[in-house]
Amino acid sequence: MHIRSRFYLLLLLCLLLTALGLAQAQDPLPSWNDGPAKQAILNFVRTTTDRTGPNFVPPEQRIAAFDQDGTTWVEHPMYTQFVFAFERVVALAQQHPEWKTTLPFQAVLSGDKAAMAKFTNKDLETIMVATHTGMTVEQFHDIVKEWLAKATDARWHRHYTELIYQPMLEVMEYLRANGYRTYIVTGGGQEFVRTYAEQVYGIPPEQVIGTAIAAEYTYNQQGQGILVRPPKLLLNDNFSGKPEDVYLFTGRHSKAAFGNSTGDQQMLEYTQAGGGAPLMMLVLHDDAQREYAYGPAQGLPGTNVGTFTQALYDEAKSRGWFVISMKNDWKRIFAWEK
Amino acid sequence: MHIRSRFYLLLLLCLLLTALGLAQAQDPLPSWNDGPAKQAILNFVRTTTDRTGPNFVPPEQRIAAFDQDGTTWVEHPMYTQFVFAFERVVALAQQHPEWKTTLPFQAVLSGDKAAMAKFTNKDLETIMVATHTGMTVEQFHDIVKEWLAKATDARWHRHYTELIYQPMLEVMEYLRANGYRTYIVTGGGQEFVRTYAEQVYGIPPEQVIGTAIAAEYTYNQQGQGILVRPPKLLLNDNFSGKPEDVYLFTGRHSKAAFGNSTGDQQMLEYTQAGGGAPLMMLVLHDDAQREYAYGPAQGLPGTNVGTFTQALYDEAKSRGWFVISMKNDWKRIFAWEK
Repeated sequence: MHIRSRFYLLLLLCLLLTALGLAQAQDPLPSWNDGPAKQAILNFVRTTTDRTGPNFVPPEQRIAAFDQDGTTWVEHPMYTQFVFAFERVVALAQQHPEWKTTLPFQAVLSGDKAAMAKFTNKDLETIMVATHTGMTVEQFHDIVKEWLAKATDARWHRHYTELIYQPMLEVMEYLRANGYRTYIVTGGGQEFVRTYAEQVYGIPPEQVIGTAIAAEYTYNQQGQGILVRPPKLLLNDNFSGKPEDVYLFTGRHSKAAFGNSTGDQQMLEYTQAGGGAPLMMLVLHDDAQREYAYGPAQGLPGTNVGTFTQALYDEAKSRGWFVISMKNDWKRIFAWEK
Repeated sequence: MHIRSRFYLLLLLCLLLTALGLAQAQDPLPSWNDGPAKQAILNFVRTTTDRTGPNFVPPEQRIAAFDQDGTTWVEHPMYTQFVFAFERVVALAQQHPEWKTTLPFQAVLSGDKAAMAKFTNKDLETIMVATHTGMTVEQFHDIVKEWLAKATDARWHRHYTELIYQPMLEVMEYLRANGYRTYIVTGGGQEFVRTYAEQVYGIPPEQVIGTAIAAEYTYNQQGQGILVRPPKLLLNDNFSGKPEDVYLFTGRHSKAAFGNSTGDQQMLEYTQAGGGAPLMMLVLHDDAQREYAYGPAQGLPGTNVGTFTQALYDEAKSRGWFVISMKNDWKRIFAWEK
């Protein structure tokens, strides 16, 4: 081949590779496989940020709501916050010698998994009150932070804050880059999630809405105002509590909503009821190998407050909500995956 | 005088005037007279935005909280929202013929001011339930908007949204220009204030915290999700409710807090308890000519939920809070004043 031809060929190749590289670098969702779910997200952003289109959403109305457990991080086999509560029971046992012989604490202290699996809501409430109330808001914050820095899960031996779904982090970042304010809207504890949401999701505390223990104003011995946590539930952010509290906090409809269970159903419905071209998505746990498979993918019931039932799956299909298959739609699940 | 000297003199004069003009243009608080209150605001911003100083506040923590009634707009002789409620009673009377003979509605319909002045909390609650609940959140929003567009006050014959204190608007703008997020934290209705806060204060609905009726998720006849207003109080944003709800909404201490009554006392206390170099200010209504004089300035009790008592005045002095004298500190009170 002529030297000059070879030069041009090389140049062409370089240009092609550069173009390819750029295209890849510009993919805002690199952990997503091409498919309807990824396309739905890209379409949603394109449509709602197109000033000339009929479904343009003014920047001040750009709100996207994410459920947490099972949607942005692992919830199986048990909510992380319950793990925290049970480990707090163990940590506090010395101050409560009576717990050794009192249910439900006894079951936790003796590691009786069969008994723990049968805990009633009342049992769980007793444990939540014992571990989540009776301190100042700052003390609770520090307890959670300290626990998260040490605790690891049983399967991957990772910190719980490493069990975040990388594809969802990319969606959050992509939405924010397009003027959306991303909110966590969780059945989990508002203050629990606020301790790490900024660091882990890039979401500031004012954009974390969750089930909330009241913060009660009182005075310390120095006469300074403090906020303490009484055993009083103020907000329950499951089921209808989700759209209710998105409204309480923002006065708006969310334009996009991500969930994975019946606990998120009303939030997705209300997002859709806001009109325009909203985005509603449900994460389906169908990847036993890389994460877990439960819900309609397995014909198994979920283990938690809300579950991904067959009825929810059918509602999603009939309403035009997108179901994200972890197995097919996600190239990788965790940031640390090879 | 020599031509050349005259030229230089003129030039000097021009330069001086320009410099003066610039200095004036740069004053972020032009409706404030020089004095300790204005200095306190300027000092607060300088101190908390100085990266090299010990009291620097990182941008994400910059939150300033403003009470509304009596702090950012006129509350005398009656809260605007009560005026709204009473006028709604009149507007709805045709649909409720029984109100003509039922207290407390009867008193409102017959314009019996003596009886209205003696309304108990129970009476007021009955009227609030009748006028503020039983519709969707959107319907309520529209009702308030329509009323505000028409209603005017008895003294100045202005729309209520024109009875905003210009000096406080300047403080809000100045704080925002320095990275602060400004919040309204009001004993008034959250949804009531959210209908105009953006337009009037430049404050978006997510930064309006107020006394809140629950929004309840349900379905309309088309099976669409809607939020309705049941007769159920969710948040009471007076007294200790203020710091509690600032925390509920933001997870943070406010760094500056503005109020005018005992209803704001706890919010100011908790702001101070956050440490650093916070700013706590109380508006004293001591200007009977341009607005009203009540509270300790007149030895008169306030007329509303919280009042500016002598005890509060003394607490302010002992804690180093700044008392803003409307008469002395404010050059003008309303934007439309000559």
